[in-house]
Amino acid sequence: MQDFNFYSPTYFVFGKDKENLVGHYVKRFGGSKVLIHYGGGSVIRSGLMDRVKASLNKEGIDFVELGGVQPNPIDSKVYEGINLCRKEGVDFILAVGGGSTIDSAKAIAAGVKYDGDFWDFYSKPMPVTDAVKIGTVLTIPAAGSEGSGDSVITKTDGMLKWDASGEALRPTFSIMNPELTMTLPPYQTACGITDIMAHVLERYFTNTKDVEITDRMCESILQTMVKEGPRAIANPNDYAARANIMWAGMVAHNNLVGVGREQDWSSHRMEHELSALYDVAHGAGLAVMFPAWMKYVVKHDINRFAQIAVRVWNVPMDFANPEATALEGINRFEKFLSSIGMPINFEQLGAKEEDIPKMVERIGLKDGETIGGFVKLTSKDIENIYRLAVN
Amino acid sequence: MQDFNFYSPTYFVFGKDKENLVGHYVKRFGGSKVLIHYGGGSVIRSGLMDRVKASLNKEGIDFVELGGVQPNPIDSKVYEGINLCRKEGVDFILAVGGGSTIDSAKAIAAGVKYDGDFWDFYSKPMPVTDAVKIGTVLTIPAAGSEGSGDSVITKTDGMLKWDASGEALRPTFSIMNPELTMTLPPYQTACGITDIMAHVLERYFTNTKDVEITDRMCESILQTMVKEGPRAIANPNDYAARANIMWAGMVAHNNLVGVGREQDWSSHRMEHELSALYDVAHGAGLAVMFPAWMKYVVKHDINRFAQIAVRVWNVPMDFANPEATALEGINRFEKFLSSIGMPINFEQLGAKEEDIPKMVERIGLKDGETIGGFVKLTSKDIENIYRLAVN
Repeated sequence: MQDFNFYSPTYFVFGKDKENLVGHYVKRFGGSKVLIHYGGGSVIRSGLMDRVKASLNKEGIDFVELGGVQPNPIDSKVYEGINLCRKEGVDFILAVGGGSTIDSAKAIAAGVKYDGDFWDFYSKPMPVTDAVKIGTVLTIPAAGSEGSGDSVITKTDGMLKWDASGEALRPTFSIMNPELTMTLPPYQTACGITDIMAHVLERYFTNTKDVEITDRMCESILQTMVKEGPRAIANPNDYAARANIMWAGMVAHNNLVGVGREQDWSSHRMEHELSALYDVAHGAGLAVMFPAWMKYVVKHDINRFAQIAVRVWNVPMDFANPEATALEGINRFEKFLSSIGMPINFEQLGAKEEDIPKMVERIGLKDGETIGGFVKLTSKDIENIYRLAVN
Repeated sequence: MQDFNFYSPTYFVFGKDKENLVGHYVKRFGGSKVLIHYGGGSVIRSGLMDRVKASLNKEGIDFVELGGVQPNPIDSKVYEGINLCRKEGVDFILAVGGGSTIDSAKAIAAGVKYDGDFWDFYSKPMPVTDAVKIGTVLTIPAAGSEGSGDSVITKTDGMLKWDASGEALRPTFSIMNPELTMTLPPYQTACGITDIMAHVLERYFTNTKDVEITDRMCESILQTMVKEGPRAIANPNDYAARANIMWAGMVAHNNLVGVGREQDWSSHRMEHELSALYDVAHGAGLAVMFPAWMKYVVKHDINRFAQIAVRVWNVPMDFANPEATALEGINRFEKFLSSIGMPINFEQLGAKEEDIPKMVERIGLKDGETIGGFVKLTSKDIENIYRLAVN
């Protein structure tokens, strides 16, 4: 196990109707002038926004609003938010929505307190150490942004989808009401499940030895997705399934299960080019990239792939042929993704083989440069993995 | 799943030599005058105390000291600490040691800020909402107090071993260096492992339905103990085993794996009478009480006992006779405890059957009163369980 620091100071408020307490928690964490940040009209149509505003009003908390965050949130909205916050003297940003809205709120929060261009945090190795306080009312379990210190923003000039992180980006509180996720259609639910599993898998595939506790915790989240994912898709109003997925989504990405181990993240990096080029859902892109990556790197550590095959996918261990066990695990993962309605290749996703050179070029590795922690991938490896994902 | 709040704002600093950063973290979290609280002379003889003081000195942080905390920490030391803190203007309490030292530090921290008797927090349903800031340098993984908002203190007048809790008792930071635990002898190591498993089991046995994520996370900690516990006992200097146990011990009790579910805690309550009467190690008492409790309540939910038997103890499911599976799981747990050197009955612990009425009386349930969340135990049930534990 490697040395690590772990700090997750977010106050989680989980359960039915908890959005009605949002005003209480903004006040508790010192907010007096709030920016409510949100995406499309669904949070308005559903009545959620009315409940949020009523709760803020009840506590006498003043607020301004900025909607229109899009999936794969973009820099122009962030600049708009920064300007609005400065003009209005906002001291607390409340994200009402999913990962895109929360990530956009985080970028604004960092930018308001920074003299330069907020994009510096995304384009340079600069951790965010100061930010306006953030709270969230989560509506989509997937990104884990409600508990993480990370944010991903797309710069439209060049379609650069890059990330920032830092302790100051951890939300002060996150309100998690599983009922709010019941209106998610099956496809979006499945994208979320895939994203949650991918966050775990990026941590699971490691070269760090002796990490039994985090291995086992990673597996516990994957096992939960295997059980609860199909239940939520079969019955969108299944509160129990929605609740298990929602809490798992937070735990999958606040890094509790990733501490003390080298992590990979090359599948995410490769996926970002898919969602940048085709504007597909991040989870759908991951469903395509992750099995391809697995097939490409399986020989790097057959025992680790066999371990997940046995422990998560209930593959009987083939002691005479561990590689067969490992491959069957990948096969079952892919079948699981298909079964919940995810695309598992370029064709199903709507991506084009002829764009592969462009995606490799956009990742932009120079000679000798690589991505990934588990296996270090060159541009040639990345191209090979994209090609494995074609069909 | 039930509604819940979860808040674990402790900054964890994990790895080799991290105690040398203690001054940095005291400063970061606003301490300027520190009480160093500790137990016996081992932290002095090992050189740990010198390193802690050097780190504080380096940051120019003033400190006073109070040692002599005993296992099953007592109220008189708490009063001594409260008086010392008030006299010296202490604004930060640094516990250097295991759960007893940390629990004593928490009691002092609560008492300093309270006008009445600190024992009120332990004798009444009064959560601690204000306390002097606490930091820890952990030397014994077991109690999980380094990440929890709980404290157990024994009042010597009447030997009342009672607990307090509250958000204000969560340490601001905890330094966890697995190397510091390598000097723990096998018996004490095994007591810690048992305590960690017991913290998980008190949460695992629940009547709350649909708690897959926390079930699985609980199991992941138990599986880790089954693998890493014997390794640490066989080779006390096995850093990897020590590291896995140390992190698992925190996760087992900061309540991440217990959220959203009714918990039990009757085994702990019954054990407290054992350690109060015989001054045995808490973990050893739990090794005696938990299997007895399990045998007594197994029929209440055979499927839950079968689940843990299959998932944690690798018992093949007997579909024709799930109770046999359940019982074999309990049997394997008991055998595991024996294998790591724990007592599993009164005789091995040094407890006396004739004291059972006294222990039942000390728990002090009136007619109609019960303890326990999974199965509500009357005084008669408690007596029966103590008798099951005799041999």
